[in-house]
Amino acid sequence: MLILVTNDDGVTAPGLLALVQEMRRVGRVRVLAPDRNWSASGHVKTMHRPLRVREVLLADSTAAFTSDGAPSDCVAVALLGYLDEKVDLVVSGINPNANIGHDVTYSGTVTAAMEAVIGGVPGIAVSLHSPENHLGDLDYGPAARVARNIVERLFTNGMDSKTLLNVNVPYLTDHEIKGVMVTRQGLRLYRDRLDKRTDPRGRPYYWIGGDAPTAVPDEGTDFGALAQGYVSITPLDLDLTDYPAQERLAKIRW
Amino acid sequence: MLILVTNDDGVTAPGLLALVQEMRRVGRVRVLAPDRNWSASGHVKTMHRPLRVREVLLADSTAAFTSDGAPSDCVAVALLGYLDEKVDLVVSGINPNANIGHDVTYSGTVTAAMEAVIGGVPGIAVSLHSPENHLGDLDYGPAARVARNIVERLFTNGMDSKTLLNVNVPYLTDHEIKGVMVTRQGLRLYRDRLDKRTDPRGRPYYWIGGDAPTAVPDEGTDFGALAQGYVSITPLDLDLTDYPAQERLAKIRW
Repeated sequence: MLILVTNDDGVTAPGLLALVQEMRRVGRVRVLAPDRNWSASGHVKTMHRPLRVREVLLADSTAAFTSDGAPSDCVAVALLGYLDEKVDLVVSGINPNANIGHDVTYSGTVTAAMEAVIGGVPGIAVSLHSPENHLGDLDYGPAARVARNIVERLFTNGMDSKTLLNVNVPYLTDHEIKGVMVTRQGLRLYRDRLDKRTDPRGRPYYWIGGDAPTAVPDEGTDFGALAQGYVSITPLDLDLTDYPAQERLAKIRW
Repeated sequence: MLILVTNDDGVTAPGLLALVQEMRRVGRVRVLAPDRNWSASGHVKTMHRPLRVREVLLADSTAAFTSDGAPSDCVAVALLGYLDEKVDLVVSGINPNANIGHDVTYSGTVTAAMEAVIGGVPGIAVSLHSPENHLGDLDYGPAARVARNIVERLFTNGMDSKTLLNVNVPYLTDHEIKGVMVTRQGLRLYRDRLDKRTDPRGRPYYWIGGDAPTAVPDEGTDFGALAQGYVSITPLDLDLTDYPAQERLAKIRW
């Protein structure tokens, strides 16, 4: 089993290292991850410029590749032949913040997993629901072990090339985590505000600011599971068709 | 009715101008579009740097705003208060190439419309299925008139804040276009190849290259409609949960 690990925080991020170390217990691991942070950068296909790939060492001396492309570019480059061997699974993360609700279309972590599925390989995005005002280093250990367990279960129970999972892990110790719930995508509540400022030359500029997003902890949703101390696994489908709306709209005389 | 027009090709693109001119026949129009091309750039929320907004004139002297953010940033900035009046609809385009199948998660045109819906405003993405090897200027007139008709029908038949439509128009004259089909998202066939080259200093670099994508012209799909000469309207849902997979996965002992 060959597992490609990537992320959207950059190849030096501690969340990636923790994931690599656990994935190595399940199969062979290759790493191709961005050389910088691509958070909230969306699903990118870089076609207007060429990409560089170079070899680096992770903090534990694991050989890895890094690219100046987006997370989804890293996956595309790997699957299009850079790795010259068949990848069985792409795991992306561990992102230091939850990716729930509408986050899934913005998230570099999740869109890397989407790119895997588009390339014919199952993809799993792993994110940690860390406390909003956490100071200091995060402990990615429990989330990495959760990711390993999930991958082992999937290898046993069968996954196919369309398997696309968005996994979020509560920020708890191994023993505090209550279990795993298979969930649906919940409702994110963004609290963005436009913050207007003036530069030293008197010209305005704008930050997309405001408070960090919250979410509705509905039963059965990603955030509902996290709020109760459970790991959330939301399977995603890249067919975005709104079928009920399709029926309604088909009745209009266009 | 206030309509915000944006795109992913940049504020000077002819497809935007054609759309603005037709939308003006339906309601009041404001423009806030990127100052450069963001094709295949995905759903972006720029939070790591501030954004600039400046006023420009379109080729027909329409006053417009342009920003150094992504298409989705332009929509966010407008809806978060830059426009200081309520926007009723966001229309994005006209993109010079079709956005069908899996394109919807990469497409700046479509993700701008997604950002509208996340912001509580209906969003419509409009793309032109132009011939692959078209030389010279494209005629956006028929597609712009199609977009106007669709918006008029929606105003009459009611749309809500979750209305998210991905519209693709065949490259035909007004009379050649056979009608409108309400479709589902079809299957894109990407033909990407990794193209390795060597720079003048002997170091490798990589293009994501290959042939332009094709698609499966299945009955009832976006591309199926285009292939028959029809306009395709695919309603999209931002809940990406794969519900059948959710049922299957819930049976696994995690």
